[in-house]
Amino acid sequence: MTALNINMTDTSKTSTPPTDSKEKVSQFMKQLQDSICIGLEQLDGKGKFREDSWEREEGGGGRSRILNEGEILEQGGVNFSEVWGEKLPPSILKQRPEAEGHGFYATGTSMVLHPRSPYIPTVHLNYRYFEAGPVWWFGGGADLTPYYPFAEDAAHFHRTFQSACDRNHPKYYSVFKRWCDEYFYLKHRQETRGVGGLFFDYQDGRGELYRGPHPDKAAAKLSKEIGALEPRDWSDLFAFIQDCGQAFLPAYIPIVERRKDIEYGDRERNFQLYRRGRYVEFNLVYDRGTIFGLQTNGRTESILMSLPPLVRWEYNYTPEPNTPEAELYETFLKPQDWANWQQK
Amino acid sequence: MTALNINMTDTSKTSTPPTDSKEKVSQFMKQLQDSICIGLEQLDGKGKFREDSWEREEGGGGRSRILNEGEILEQGGVNFSEVWGEKLPPSILKQRPEAEGHGFYATGTSMVLHPRSPYIPTVHLNYRYFEAGPVWWFGGGADLTPYYPFAEDAAHFHRTFQSACDRNHPKYYSVFKRWCDEYFYLKHRQETRGVGGLFFDYQDGRGELYRGPHPDKAAAKLSKEIGALEPRDWSDLFAFIQDCGQAFLPAYIPIVERRKDIEYGDRERNFQLYRRGRYVEFNLVYDRGTIFGLQTNGRTESILMSLPPLVRWEYNYTPEPNTPEAELYETFLKPQDWANWQQK
Repeated sequence: MTALNINMTDTSKTSTPPTDSKEKVSQFMKQLQDSICIGLEQLDGKGKFREDSWEREEGGGGRSRILNEGEILEQGGVNFSEVWGEKLPPSILKQRPEAEGHGFYATGTSMVLHPRSPYIPTVHLNYRYFEAGPVWWFGGGADLTPYYPFAEDAAHFHRTFQSACDRNHPKYYSVFKRWCDEYFYLKHRQETRGVGGLFFDYQDGRGELYRGPHPDKAAAKLSKEIGALEPRDWSDLFAFIQDCGQAFLPAYIPIVERRKDIEYGDRERNFQLYRRGRYVEFNLVYDRGTIFGLQTNGRTESILMSLPPLVRWEYNYTPEPNTPEAELYETFLKPQDWANWQQK
Repeated sequence: MTALNINMTDTSKTSTPPTDSKEKVSQFMKQLQDSICIGLEQLDGKGKFREDSWEREEGGGGRSRILNEGEILEQGGVNFSEVWGEKLPPSILKQRPEAEGHGFYATGTSMVLHPRSPYIPTVHLNYRYFEAGPVWWFGGGADLTPYYPFAEDAAHFHRTFQSACDRNHPKYYSVFKRWCDEYFYLKHRQETRGVGGLFFDYQDGRGELYRGPHPDKAAAKLSKEIGALEPRDWSDLFAFIQDCGQAFLPAYIPIVERRKDIEYGDRERNFQLYRRGRYVEFNLVYDRGTIFGLQTNGRTESILMSLPPLVRWEYNYTPEPNTPEAELYETFLKPQDWANWQQK
């Protein structure tokens, strides 16, 4: 189990969460939902979030917030949930066998924004926390999916999260940036979903990126190359998650401000609707959370609020050479070192 | 292996295909593609299919035909393919362990039509044939996905395929109709994809609907209740597939003729675009052929030509009571005995 650890630190046990860990994290997740919704309503100027509270028969529930037909946001969804039950589903137990025979608790906030203007990128965020018997872990990240190629937007997004990471661990950004590129990859299109950002899962302070026979190939690949991170306490990881969550508005709002007044026509709108199809393909074919949720009686409407309001498919589309659309494919749908991008 | 056979017939061996079985079936599949394309161009009056031929590195290839922006068809795709290779993928080998260590051959024709008018149903057809060492089998079917509830259309479609089935085996229609209802089911929506039609797989003449540890729960359920069909020869099954293929145009064209001149407005168009989202959800989340193709380097553009040209998602939509849209949900998205429907 520790064969992949190439450093000498003891990664065999996790630190113990405080007695009020669940309250602390769920309170933060709710605050994150609140602050994001407030920030987005201010940004949009017209759209308002409406809330649906829901309960889960097996335990827990959530509050889904949707904004439709805003000035800037064609659709935006920000969900908070807090659920518990007698046992984790088999797919997670396989990855965390120590949780076998224990009840579980999970809380998280997730968000997907589909702006109206093709010049403003779609963006996704998700942070989550699990406890199950002797184990606990944090997961999540944020990633940007532009339709038109503005390198400075990609660089700004990455640098903002890089700063949040650097405040917590010198290796976090480089590892979680690559994990994001590998996770948000459409194999059947040979494209990344967008310019990426951060992604991580199973962060329990033991420092290993990959443990057990679970299907996270990206983490397994990174583990081989990078080895383990230094062990961290629960409070260190919680602080990291908070920094990441709070980095979202500063990472995204300046991009929107820069692009919101650029005029566009049918060409740009049609390309946006076409590219939104990739978002649907990724979420329904690859995204573990979406597929898992759909197959285990999650609240379908909350899970699928990530899908865009209007989408187009076109047989055999390829962009014209030497157009902005071609530049998106050539540069922005492949992993790039955006944090170190330099204006020429 | 034969525990599920409750009749006394010997279902332990398959009849032998003729020496020219591959040529015979692939010729039929090509003719089926041709005749469907000709029939649809005549029906549409404006749209023309354009063809892309493609080759597969590992062996074989196909011809994809797409019609866009027709008078009646907003998009239609009819694909023929014929592929071979050294070994079947693990997912199929699990279901047909006798094929282990043998090369394989597969040929088939598939079609999805997305009409422009919300009053004309979307329709899907697929017939396929496999040979691999000592085993061979046919699979396929056709199913109808209306947006507005016309019981006579559903009844006509089912009766046409019922006649094709009855010419071949008295049990085929009732078994393959139910298999269709169970296969084309969106668990996360608790809806059938549409009014169904026929679906079957692994028909090798041995009569068993279910054999081995494969994931076809629908077939397993039917097997328990119905037991095995009588064993059939290769030529009987080939004749059945031909009858089914030839039944498509007579099953669909009269429905189009009845509905094509009904006027519609934004309400109906918006509902159609919304319901098309379910087609995307089914194909990307559940359809074995689509997922298998995407994950094994199939030709992505040919696989995903099944996706509609324009699609809408809307958070928490439910139809108004006592509307045609509500009737679709209440009656047409649940299994019904359409062949025995009576005009009141």
